Amino acid sequence: VDHEANGFHPTDILRDFDYGRTSRTEDGRVLREWDVYASDEEIEVAPGVKYPAWTFNGRIPGPTLRCTEGDRLRVHFHNGSEHPHTMHFHGMHPAEMDGIPGLGAGTIEPGGSTVYEFDAEPFGVHLYHCHVGPLAEHMARGLYGTFIVDPKQGRPAADEQVMVMHGFNTTFDGEGNQLYAVNGIPFHYMHEPVRVKLGELVRIYLINTLEYDPINSFHVHGNFFDYYPTGTRLEPTEFTDTIIQGQGQRGICEMRFKYPGKYMFHAHKTEFAELGWMGFFEVTE
Amino acid sequence: VDHEANGFHPTDILRDFDYGRTSRTEDGRVLREWDVYASDEEIEVAPGVKYPAWTFNGRIPGPTLRCTEGDRLRVHFHNGSEHPHTMHFHGMHPAEMDGIPGLGAGTIEPGGSTVYEFDAEPFGVHLYHCHVGPLAEHMARGLYGTFIVDPKQGRPAADEQVMVMHGFNTTFDGEGNQLYAVNGIPFHYMHEPVRVKLGELVRIYLINTLEYDPINSFHVHGNFFDYYPTGTRLEPTEFTDTIIQGQGQRGICEMRFKYPGKYMFHAHKTEFAELGWMGFFEVTE
Amino acid sequence: VDHEANGFHPTDILRDFDYGRTSRTEDGRVLREWDVYASDEEIEVAPGVKYPAWTFNGRIPGPTLRCTEGDRLRVHFHNGSEHPHTMHFHGMHPAEMDGIPGLGAGTIEPGGSTVYEFDAEPFGVHLYHCHVGPLAEHMARGLYGTFIVDPKQGRPAADEQVMVMHGFNTTFDGEGNQLYAVNGIPFHYMHEPVRVKLGELVRIYLINTLEYDPINSFHVHGNFFDYYPTGTRLEPTEFTDTIIQGQGQRGICEMRFKYPGKYMFHAHKTEFAELGWMGFFEVTE
Ligand SMILES: [Cu+2]
Ligand SMILES: [Cu+2]
Ligand SMILES: [Cu+2]
Ligand SMILES: [Cu+2]
Ligand SMILES: [Cu+2]
Ligand SMILES: [Cu+2]
Ligand code: NA
Ligand code: NA
Ligand code: NA
Ligand code: NA
Ligand code: NA
Ligand code: NA
Ligand SMILES: [Zn+2]
Ligand SMILES: [Zn+2]
Ligand SMILES: [Zn+2]
Ligand SMILES: [Zn+2]
Ligand SMILES: [Zn+2]
Ligand SMILES: [Zn+2]
Ligand SMILES: [Zn+2]
Ligand SMILES: [Zn+2]
Ligand SMILES: [Zn+2]
Repeated sequence: VDHEANGFHPTDILRDFDYGRTSRTEDGRVLREWDVYASDEEIEVAPGVKYPAWTFNGRIPGPTLRCTEGDRLRVHFHNGSEHPHTMHFHGMHPAEMDGIPGLGAGTIEPGGSTVYEFDAEPFGVHLYHCHVGPLAEHMARGLYGTFIVDPKQGRPAADEQVMVMHGFNTTFDGEGNQLYAVNGIPFHYMHEPVRVKLGELVRIYLINTLEYDPINSFHVHGNFFDYYPTGTRLEPTEFTDTIIQGQGQRGICEMRFKYPGKYMFHAHKTEFAELGWMGFFEVTE
Repeated sequence: VDHEANGFHPTDILRDFDYGRTSRTEDGRVLREWDVYASDEEIEVAPGVKYPAWTFNGRIPGPTLRCTEGDRLRVHFHNGSEHPHTMHFHGMHPAEMDGIPGLGAGTIEPGGSTVYEFDAEPFGVHLYHCHVGPLAEHMARGLYGTFIVDPKQGRPAADEQVMVMHGFNTTFDGEGNQLYAVNGIPFHYMHEPVRVKLGELVRIYLINTLEYDPINSFHVHGNFFDYYPTGTRLEPTEFTDTIIQGQGQRGICEMRFKYPGKYMFHAHKTEFAELGWMGFFEVTE
Repeated sequence: VDHEANGFHPTDILRDFDYGRTSRTEDGRVLREWDVYASDEEIEVAPGVKYPAWTFNGRIPGPTLRCTEGDRLRVHFHNGSEHPHTMHFHGMHPAEMDGIPGLGAGTIEPGGSTVYEFDAEPFGVHLYHCHVGPLAEHMARGLYGTFIVDPKQGRPAADEQVMVMHGFNTTFDGEGNQLYAVNGIPFHYMHEPVRVKLGELVRIYLINTLEYDPINSFHVHGNFFDYYPTGTRLEPTEFTDTIIQGQGQRGICEMRFKYPGKYMFHAHKTEFAELGWMGFFEVTE
């Protein structure tokens, strides 16, 4: 897969947090601003397999927008695609900022733009996606990304990573996926393992945007993680090595590797794993 | 859709709690009694689409039976359908009151009747449904309803609502659903939004009775809710905007809207949403 | 079904815990050793229906390996099958003991053997399975079993049982299951109910190894259970009568029956129930 031609690289996406441009509001709060562009892109998703994607900022998944609870957020959305789109955020916000057809700015036509502005709440790991119909296709084509709201007090220092679980319906039959991936490219982290340090806290912001299939799943080998569903509380609810998520669900996985070496992570839905949703952690001292 | 011809209206079902007829048992406890009738009904589920349903009390979902833990419950079940049926309750009860073929009164033939009698426990949000085989068809045809057992101390005052998530297999192929709904009619709350007050506590008793599909899902826009799985504890386990439920699972969602306006709620399984499982809250001061 | 010809009996598997051969390590810890054999076996899964299974120790599910946290574990694995296999444990262990192709001993060819050795952690209910590709087939053929790590302080005395939920793809189309079961034989506990004592604590180690389907589910009639996901904590997270598990998920269900009689337990996915995943508890004084 030609990452340069694709214009993005899953290894970079893993730890790429976009904090936006910061300034202050009149009442002294932090204001964060981003420009997000929708565009139609041909992406090589497997050697020789080109997928006509719809993207935010030219990548799948879109940029990881990150802020702190209480910040004021302003997202300048520009639709450079040939199809109508929106940005709908999971998070609290007024109805007119919801990014769905018929409310506020509503559907943004090709060449159009709008501004979504709201307060960052609640803290947790969230997501955004286009909400234009047919919704299944606008999801399946690649229009989703991660939205992290940090708690004011922060979280303990960690090697922080984002993993967006998704798929590609390369036949466009609207009935399932022929390829599965985390962060854009099937099997990528098999070839380029995720490098982590022995004993260090690893924090994964895990999001499921998979279209068509009823659930997705995350399993790690040889290790266990604390799981924080939606990341909205500072205490974990579960200590496990396998979780499932429906579309739109997300959570934080925190783990430390006790031994060096290579450890698989993959969907424990074997079909997804064998069609691309698998990778390795490589643990070194 | 002609709600009058159907004989029930989803807007009414939402807040329709049936506490039964109350009296006292010899030992001074509250005795609640209900009459529930099974019947075969043709229901208009989409404009011009008639579905040959099997119902409890002529509606889909059946009546929301509500009581308090420790009450004595007596359900007089009358089978006015042309098919054999039972009422099986999720809840604690002796085996002979379980409402399944071969135990206690067993299968209730057309024209027959029986009485199910047991104590109300544990508190939480539960369900009842017919348990005659083929079970998939007796579920899919519409034979389910909500069973709420309130804790003795009650719950905080709220705008209380019931949402039963289900579907219609209009082709009768036994392989899936062509329409999805909450409280009987696909897309109903798109046309008649659920009206709620700004800042008021909204408590949704959410039940999944969907047949054929492995999971269902509930997502609310622009807001988050506390989630109480099965409603059997007074502390929530999760603060989120998206949950999944397998068939027979249920829980309580508590939320307050901070801003006025219209907010979608729908399955975050886009297929279900686009085939009817979507609606609006309309928030006013 | 001819259990003797099959060589295993689901009623026995239910309460059959294999603690291995114990001795002491040089530093005084408990060392547990097991021999596990992979073999190809024809199993009668329904009257007259023979399934060409791949098994651990000649049974489906494989032996329930049980130990205490902190024990040293040594599993002598012998591949007597005509296909290559491994044993991959869910649990913490060094990469070279992970039981996957390409790491440590890697794939064990027919006639080959290896030793997996690691410390028992964390406490909880886990599983093991073959990890050779095509992974879906090596799961579907029957190569899985339960791995229980007891907490040092133990758990309260109970009638302990293991239930492994799985299926049989008797058409070998790789697209789903035609039969569903718990502990090897569809409908078995309908004919031979699980006998339990009134009022006694029943503890079920519940594991989902079902291939092809996205989730599995467990429901009990007339009763509720405390649920401990993955069994890694001593406090339950939920009190319910219905849970779902993706493949590789597992947990502990604790319940007491208050009334005598027969109570169904089954997947609340009706397809699975009607194709074999149902049974009875029989509660006596
Ligand atoms: Cu879109
Ligand atoms: Cu594993
Ligand atoms: Cu029925
Ligand atoms: Cu939303
Ligand atoms: Cu295998
Ligand atoms: Cu039940
Ligand atoms: Na697929
Ligand atoms: Na492992
Ligand atoms: Na469907
Ligand atoms: Na939203
Ligand atoms: Na099946
Ligand atoms: Na029951
Ligand atoms: Zn779009
Ligand atoms: Zn969404
Ligand atoms: Zn694996
Ligand atoms: Zn019936
Ligand atoms: Zn049920
Ligand atoms: Zn939506
Ligand atoms: Zn194998
Ligand atoms: Zn596994
Ligand atoms: Zn049942």
